[in-house]
Amino acid sequence: MNIHKFVMPEVIFGAGSLKQVGESCIRLGATNVFIVSDSGVIETGWLEVVMDDCKKAGLKVHTFSDITVNPKDHEVEKGCQLYVEKECDAIIGIGGGSAMDAAKAIAILSTNGGEIEDYEGVDKINRPLPPLIMIPTTAGSGSEVSQFSVIVHTKWKKKMTIVSKSLVPDIAIVDPDTLATKSALLTAATGIDVLTHGIEAYVSLAATPLTDVHAQNAIKLVANYLRPSVASKMNKEAKLQMAIASLQAGLAFSNAILGAVHAMSHTIGGRYPMLHGEVNSILLPHVMEFNLLANPKKFSEIAYLLGVNTHGIPEVEAGKQGIESIKQLLKDIDAPDSLSKMGIEEEVIPLMSQMAIKDACMITNPRDMTINELENLFKRAW
Amino acid sequence: MNIHKFVMPEVIFGAGSLKQVGESCIRLGATNVFIVSDSGVIETGWLEVVMDDCKKAGLKVHTFSDITVNPKDHEVEKGCQLYVEKECDAIIGIGGGSAMDAAKAIAILSTNGGEIEDYEGVDKINRPLPPLIMIPTTAGSGSEVSQFSVIVHTKWKKKMTIVSKSLVPDIAIVDPDTLATKSALLTAATGIDVLTHGIEAYVSLAATPLTDVHAQNAIKLVANYLRPSVASKMNKEAKLQMAIASLQAGLAFSNAILGAVHAMSHTIGGRYPMLHGEVNSILLPHVMEFNLLANPKKFSEIAYLLGVNTHGIPEVEAGKQGIESIKQLLKDIDAPDSLSKMGIEEEVIPLMSQMAIKDACMITNPRDMTINELENLFKRAW
Repeated sequence: MNIHKFVMPEVIFGAGSLKQVGESCIRLGATNVFIVSDSGVIETGWLEVVMDDCKKAGLKVHTFSDITVNPKDHEVEKGCQLYVEKECDAIIGIGGGSAMDAAKAIAILSTNGGEIEDYEGVDKINRPLPPLIMIPTTAGSGSEVSQFSVIVHTKWKKKMTIVSKSLVPDIAIVDPDTLATKSALLTAATGIDVLTHGIEAYVSLAATPLTDVHAQNAIKLVANYLRPSVASKMNKEAKLQMAIASLQAGLAFSNAILGAVHAMSHTIGGRYPMLHGEVNSILLPHVMEFNLLANPKKFSEIAYLLGVNTHGIPEVEAGKQGIESIKQLLKDIDAPDSLSKMGIEEEVIPLMSQMAIKDACMITNPRDMTINELENLFKRAW
Repeated sequence: MNIHKFVMPEVIFGAGSLKQVGESCIRLGATNVFIVSDSGVIETGWLEVVMDDCKKAGLKVHTFSDITVNPKDHEVEKGCQLYVEKECDAIIGIGGGSAMDAAKAIAILSTNGGEIEDYEGVDKINRPLPPLIMIPTTAGSGSEVSQFSVIVHTKWKKKMTIVSKSLVPDIAIVDPDTLATKSALLTAATGIDVLTHGIEAYVSLAATPLTDVHAQNAIKLVANYLRPSVASKMNKEAKLQMAIASLQAGLAFSNAILGAVHAMSHTIGGRYPMLHGEVNSILLPHVMEFNLLANPKKFSEIAYLLGVNTHGIPEVEAGKQGIESIKQLLKDIDAPDSLSKMGIEEEVIPLMSQMAIKDACMITNPRDMTINELENLFKRAW
């Protein structure tokens, strides 16, 4: 075993925990907080709940929500200008991965200056960030606990992955009640993102016993609760379990990093306005089939966690059954299964392959991959 | 589910990670570090390794090691005087639970003043502590990741449990190489402490999905690796797995708290110079037999984790088999099984029972307990 590091924020979780946000800001020394959200969050009413609780705690509050799905560099810059202009001293991100990642990126620029592309890659942030509180409302991105922020470089049409311990928030507030306002489509897409985080972290070259236990539980919870969670907004138990799954998958991938699915989907998300989880659902089975060779034992364990009876079955065979079981899950929740049907043009595959092979997530993919192999995976998923 | 909080330090782990201590101090802004250890740690040579690495990083270093097994209030006061006198600005604790808990208590007094008994109980610490780095060398206490410090009140002859988020260190450095210098006796005692942490946290009333995954893995690892770890100092794989077990049990109990075994053993440890793990090994099976009623499902799962084939067996019966399997483990590693044989006087049982029932760990014990029931447990273990 090499030397590994594991970092995570303080986590507050449970139904009603949203009401701890004001007190949490005070505890971090905030007086004037900057809340980053998006139009979807505003519609659900959760932003107002957070603002009210902050005001009740005696805090000044400013909001910013001019961000789009897959947040862009220019949106982050605009947010930072407002943060500085209003002289805020702490940042709350509430929403899905887009709002939280934008909040983190605004935090970077606010104390480190420059442009957000300066921080692409690993450990490029030198100055401490303002206190950060993240509140997920989608049970997907895991950004509330992760050291990741993913921002679109609009000129290059790609997602930049920024990885730094500084991006681990101070406090993550996970309130499963917020999940009751999600559409079935968003529940499915974000749930598949959780599954992908769990699987890629579990078979990652940087996996450790501390990440494995979280990845395992996340995979098991998705297998048991994603279907009922998609089926009904009112299934509180399913929402709670998916919130826990998202949190644990986030803890796993934040510390074990990811693999080829994310490397590939980052290039698509930078170019097309697709939900990240939808792209992952198309790519995941193909990448798993390719990666199986690298770690039959762990793929067999994934099958077991998904509910496959693996007793007495050779590991590779069990692994294959696990992949079939994922395909069935994806079908059951109506997840997309082809890039072409989603409007991705075949002629961009070579370019996307060149970008994906250089993505930071590729380093921890369990099986070595040539650019040709990567291109073939895109084609199979097309 | 109520609202729960989960906190942990940054963890650096793996063989050779001890050499990250200097850099870690620098990262926390330290210039003049105070290292708390004990005579056992000095003998093994690990203190010197830590001092060298700190000096290499350009830090000034002062050491303090006048502490005994189950560290005392007056030892902590003496340490604090030296810390203040030498104008140190960060604290490293290296050793077993005694050295690390003493280091934490010194940190409390250094910025909060008063006497250590002022901080007994939950959340009594108001001012921030100096940067804290903990380095366990025994794979037992879990103090490197926990919000606990346990200090003996010499006048009252009892252990005071201090619980506060402030006591979660900034960084825990877990290097399994340090375990190769432990005696078989200490390996057994600390290993049983790990098992007790895992079990009490798993069945605790404050257990959550985030603590459960760590508790489960800790129990499984102890079942598989404690025997070979006691058998040979040179079994690196067993040392590594026990180091992970200790860390995960620590994460579990720091956030889920403990139960009657610890409440009871604190009263013994405050009065007799016994190893904490030895006391636990005597009490654990008796307390489990009493607690089984409260959560047959989880006790059955404990049995499964211990290697019992629980398939098709009623939960209560499986739970009983799990307790038998623990008794066998204790026998195999020559753990003590009776308080009287260890020199505990029968006449102090009523007094110890009165103290144990008020211990903070009693609140999360899964089964309600009267003082008579507690006294009977002491008698059965006597």
